[in-house]
Amino acid sequence: MKPAVNMADVAVRAGVSISTVSRALGGVPGVSEATRVRIRAIADELAYVVSPEASHLARGSTGRVGVVVPAIHLWYFSSVVAGLEAVLRESELDLLLYHVGGPEDRRRFFDRLPARRKVDALVVVALPMTDEQRRRLDELGVALVFAGATSEDHPWVAIDDAAAAASAVNHLVTLGHERIAMIRTVEPDGGDWQADRGRLAGFREALQRGGLPERRDFVVTVPWGPDGGARAMDRLLALPDPPTGVFAYSDEVAIGALRSLRRARVDVPGAVSLVGLDDHPMADLTDLTTVAQFPAEIGRRAAAVVLRTLGLPVPADLDGVGVDGERPGTTLVVRGTTAPPRAAGARLGLVPSTLGGSS
Amino acid sequence: MKPAVNMADVAVRAGVSISTVSRALGGVPGVSEATRVRIRAIADELAYVVSPEASHLARGSTGRVGVVVPAIHLWYFSSVVAGLEAVLRESELDLLLYHVGGPEDRRRFFDRLPARRKVDALVVVALPMTDEQRRRLDELGVALVFAGATSEDHPWVAIDDAAAAASAVNHLVTLGHERIAMIRTVEPDGGDWQADRGRLAGFREALQRGGLPERRDFVVTVPWGPDGGARAMDRLLALPDPPTGVFAYSDEVAIGALRSLRRARVDVPGAVSLVGLDDHPMADLTDLTTVAQFPAEIGRRAAAVVLRTLGLPVPADLDGVGVDGERPGTTLVVRGTTAPPRAAGARLGLVPSTLGGSS
Repeated sequence: MKPAVNMADVAVRAGVSISTVSRALGGVPGVSEATRVRIRAIADELAYVVSPEASHLARGSTGRVGVVVPAIHLWYFSSVVAGLEAVLRESELDLLLYHVGGPEDRRRFFDRLPARRKVDALVVVALPMTDEQRRRLDELGVALVFAGATSEDHPWVAIDDAAAAASAVNHLVTLGHERIAMIRTVEPDGGDWQADRGRLAGFREALQRGGLPERRDFVVTVPWGPDGGARAMDRLLALPDPPTGVFAYSDEVAIGALRSLRRARVDVPGAVSLVGLDDHPMADLTDLTTVAQFPAEIGRRAAAVVLRTLGLPVPADLDGVGVDGERPGTTLVVRGTTAPPRAAGARLGLVPSTLGGSS
Repeated sequence: MKPAVNMADVAVRAGVSISTVSRALGGVPGVSEATRVRIRAIADELAYVVSPEASHLARGSTGRVGVVVPAIHLWYFSSVVAGLEAVLRESELDLLLYHVGGPEDRRRFFDRLPARRKVDALVVVALPMTDEQRRRLDELGVALVFAGATSEDHPWVAIDDAAAAASAVNHLVTLGHERIAMIRTVEPDGGDWQADRGRLAGFREALQRGGLPERRDFVVTVPWGPDGGARAMDRLLALPDPPTGVFAYSDEVAIGALRSLRRARVDVPGAVSLVGLDDHPMADLTDLTTVAQFPAEIGRRAAAVVLRTLGLPVPADLDGVGVDGERPGTTLVVRGTTAPPRAAGARLGLVPSTLGGSS
């Protein structure tokens, strides 16, 4: 097998950056039509793409797609990988898994770039990254696709985090809640977590639309996970006037918050309504109201983008998938943890109701 | 890179089956010392193993390990993969993921054997298989390691399912329960699911040791998952004299059972005690008593077995891992879903207690 002609070679020949080659071949906006045509011609000449029908073997590529995930043991990431794998397998592409967990792992991955020369494309799933790390990825010289996060330079598949969060918070607003909190999550090393920023923006937007003020003590930030969610809810409950509605970054965070509410014997949804985001399998089991997203579908669409970028045939049921930004939808799923707020004052089931005005 | 000298070549030269080569190189019992020495010599000659220190690249192998899992989106499997990946990555081996889901997927995998010539070793994680399919794997001519299931012909890493189940059921016996049920799970296509058989054996053993009879209507078999668990519990609750203690195949099944108990307003653990197996992250959140297993550790040890079988250095902290059957331990974790049975008659909280004799 001869080494694959890759994006770096195309970039050198065309006298442009790898990122421009990636944008041009990937159909991402920001490259002029003339440049796109020229790069496509050079790529064809260098057999980067022989023809949509040519198999990856015929064109001497690796036949492998790398996938980088920060937490394969979590439902979201493993579901994205399952969706990806199914579509790639159909196209006889193998999936190389790179689990890049904590900051140290991440530092080492970007130092060594173990995927170099081993893959035709790399799918990066919601990995917190610095700008410097983004640039390192370009040096791989292969097609890059982002899943679970947007990108300015490469094709991506991601939900609209702001819209998803806004629909969760708007549900609370519509029920009549006026004291609404958000549990945010952070990466321990302060890496950029796009989804968290997006969901915070959606939270703010929904409050604003509802004419509600944002209170600083109603935005609590904790490390991701059920334990973080539990701690955040403890903090909110300790406030002199706790919220009646809480939006949690994700279902696993919400389920931790639910545990704190149960332990504190706070009635849900009587005293506090809670809404998550994901529709994790456990949301159904804990009767959690949430905004459903579909990570396996995100994986399938990211695979379709990979196939299109590599010039390989895309399965018929994914034919509508573009390459310049895919927004799979989300859906509000109302279950048992949300209801209109009780009369103010009766909030924690501790004080008899003396004020009216609940909706 | 020249093609790897593989087990099939060694087998032909030695005039033995691939399975014998695998056993001999893997240190699995059932091969005479003389044969083992002879096969090792041929393998060395064919550079199957140059030396424990030689890197995989130096010996012209693929540098990749395949992992076959039936359900990457589930906690158990994705945790095994996370453990595997971490250790393989340290040794600069790449992980090729094969998600082989339903019966149709499985049939196709064994027809095509997509891992052929692409990996130095294949780790098979708790995949239900027919004898015919096991034989097909041998034809790959690479080192095989089983995780989450034992094997007679290849090295394996698996918990003692019978012992784990027995410790769960024995916990119920010790609390004084006499009417104990088990929720079993099946593969829809009847493939052999070793863990289920092992856990049933442990259930029976614990009943016997406790001097308790096994009742046919107290063993309910459902498809794996929370929904199956919910259905099984519905059936048990519909019996004229339901059990007071229930052991569920796994935590996700138990959590489904818990949902049915809540919906039927059956007090847990007052009327029914419930114990699972796994220590899934959700077990802590639902306060479920369970027997903990540690799938990431199973993955790490399986990776160590791979390294040893390939003649590569094993990380110091895994140095004690053998190659002829590894049994990571399990631990009973007592939480809020188990307690001594209430007085008979008060069982479902529906009938006033008229009989004594609770423990």
